Amino acid sequence: MSSILELTKFITSEFNRSLKSFPLPKNPEYLYGPIKYSLKGNGKRFRPILVHLSGRKYKVNPDDIMKVSLAVELLHCFTLIHDDIMDSDATRRNMPTLHKQYDTSAAILAGDGIFTISQLILNGVENKPAQFLMSYNQAVLEICEGQALDKDYEGKEDITLDNYTSMVKKKTGALLAACCYLPAILAGETDDTISVLKNTGEHLGIAFQIQDDLFEIFGDETRMGKSLGSDIFSNKNTAVAIESRKCFKSEWNIIVEEFDGRNLDIIRNFLVENKIKYRIEEIAENHFSSAYDSLKKLGFDKHSELYKFIKIIQERHS
Amino acid sequence: MSSILELTKFITSEFNRSLKSFPLPKNPEYLYGPIKYSLKGNGKRFRPILVHLSGRKYKVNPDDIMKVSLAVELLHCFTLIHDDIMDSDATRRNMPTLHKQYDTSAAILAGDGIFTISQLILNGVENKPAQFLMSYNQAVLEICEGQALDKDYEGKEDITLDNYTSMVKKKTGALLAACCYLPAILAGETDDTISVLKNTGEHLGIAFQIQDDLFEIFGDETRMGKSLGSDIFSNKNTAVAIESRKCFKSEWNIIVEEFDGRNLDIIRNFLVENKIKYRIEEIAENHFSSAYDSLKKLGFDKHSELYKFIKIIQERHS
Repeated sequence: MSSILELTKFITSEFNRSLKSFPLPKNPEYLYGPIKYSLKGNGKRFRPILVHLSGRKYKVNPDDIMKVSLAVELLHCFTLIHDDIMDSDATRRNMPTLHKQYDTSAAILAGDGIFTISQLILNGVENKPAQFLMSYNQAVLEICEGQALDKDYEGKEDITLDNYTSMVKKKTGALLAACCYLPAILAGETDDTISVLKNTGEHLGIAFQIQDDLFEIFGDETRMGKSLGSDIFSNKNTAVAIESRKCFKSEWNIIVEEFDGRNLDIIRNFLVENKIKYRIEEIAENHFSSAYDSLKKLGFDKHSELYKFIKIIQERHS
Repeated sequence: MSSILELTKFITSEFNRSLKSFPLPKNPEYLYGPIKYSLKGNGKRFRPILVHLSGRKYKVNPDDIMKVSLAVELLHCFTLIHDDIMDSDATRRNMPTLHKQYDTSAAILAGDGIFTISQLILNGVENKPAQFLMSYNQAVLEICEGQALDKDYEGKEDITLDNYTSMVKKKTGALLAACCYLPAILAGETDDTISVLKNTGEHLGIAFQIQDDLFEIFGDETRMGKSLGSDIFSNKNTAVAIESRKCFKSEWNIIVEEFDGRNLDIIRNFLVENKIKYRIEEIAENHFSSAYDSLKKLGFDKHSELYKFIKIIQERHS
């Protein structure tokens, strides 16, 4: 495992260097000030790493790999900025969210600007098949659809785990999938290969989001870089909430009602004692298994970089 | 003139038919409901018409012309939705703005979705030079910069007409310019031609925005499709405000302070009596002249469709 850790560390540092040296004008300050602020935080860079590992496997030109990885991270950043406004979230990566640091107008505009810059970066990739940008923008539209479902599900009591899975497949899975297949499209791989890589990324995305839902309750606040329990506070239909409501409707409703943003231990105990935590973890594991199975179809074995990196994601603690 | 009116009427009707039959899914309703609402209003379609007239001149494939015209109108629609949130505007085209009809979250997301769809439409244009999408996204970034300057200028007392012109050149000019040059890029025209068309569109955009600033005070409310005087209410640095403040600082500040959203006649009289209206109209005329001069360099004479259409814009009343 040590070599994959070294590799991802190296990719992260090269990526951060590229991102930090990315040329952004100073003016207008109202646009580029907030954009620079939002790029300051050090994310975990899972998405750029995925792009690099897929790009290495398919022997894509390193400059193009870097461009694609920058574009997907900027896209991710854009969705976080707009989602944080929509969800009224105040903290992200241990920093005030953009609309809290500036205001909603500046944050909307910074998001639009970052999204546009991500398009410009991809426009600059040479010799790309027509399918390349089309697939990218289809992924963006899927992410919008996922966010729409997430907003629509808020506060509803009849959302099932299947609904939830379809939602996060779009909201989180579409981008992780794009990270896996965009390099392969550049390399001219077959539609079958693209489709299997898409499947891998979608399962990874679902598993990843379910993990995040659990971290939102069981995680460490500093490590997570935000206040915990906000999903419960805004009555979001996470995997945890859906499963709890399904099996213990009245108890769960009382817990949600009585949650004051701090008494997380009551919720934690409830989820452990009633084996809900265990069941949700199992669902995530199943999606990780599906991601591995999908990879194997393409000849990635457990010694391959992509496989090992997904293992790292699976075993993360934040 | 009658033939150009017939032509633009035909283009508008073909364009509206294309827009209305544009395939949009039903679900998620949270995303596509607001998107459909925002595409309902019948805009004046100046931007699509410009694309069609430029496309006809450069003999671009009609299917591609239609795609480009759809993309620029959707882009325009996306910027209006987000700008209306930033400016807290309540009415647009005689309908409640999107964030008033739904809410801010739905409006942010609908804007993001429409912008993505405009990218997808352009991704579907075949045989496009690499420069095509790059120029499109550079125009979008310029629009964001223009909006940033506009927000930044709000309430500031030291903004000059030069500042204003640089701002609207980006905010309004960048898109009108793109309408003029995108078809020429598709047709493989030289960089010189593209650059002159860009110049034409930018002058047209500046003139157009100055006209709009005047309509905002002197226009007809129903015809404009929104309540008038909102720029004065939010103390925006329009050409009118800048010129008034420059020449009659204390009088203008009192007028702005005492404006209650209804007593527009006081402002109208002030602007007419002090010849500010006249001077601002003259500035707009000068930019129209520059647009015509620019066109002439490319061999468009006053009988050409593009020239005649700019004349129609120049003589509009709303």
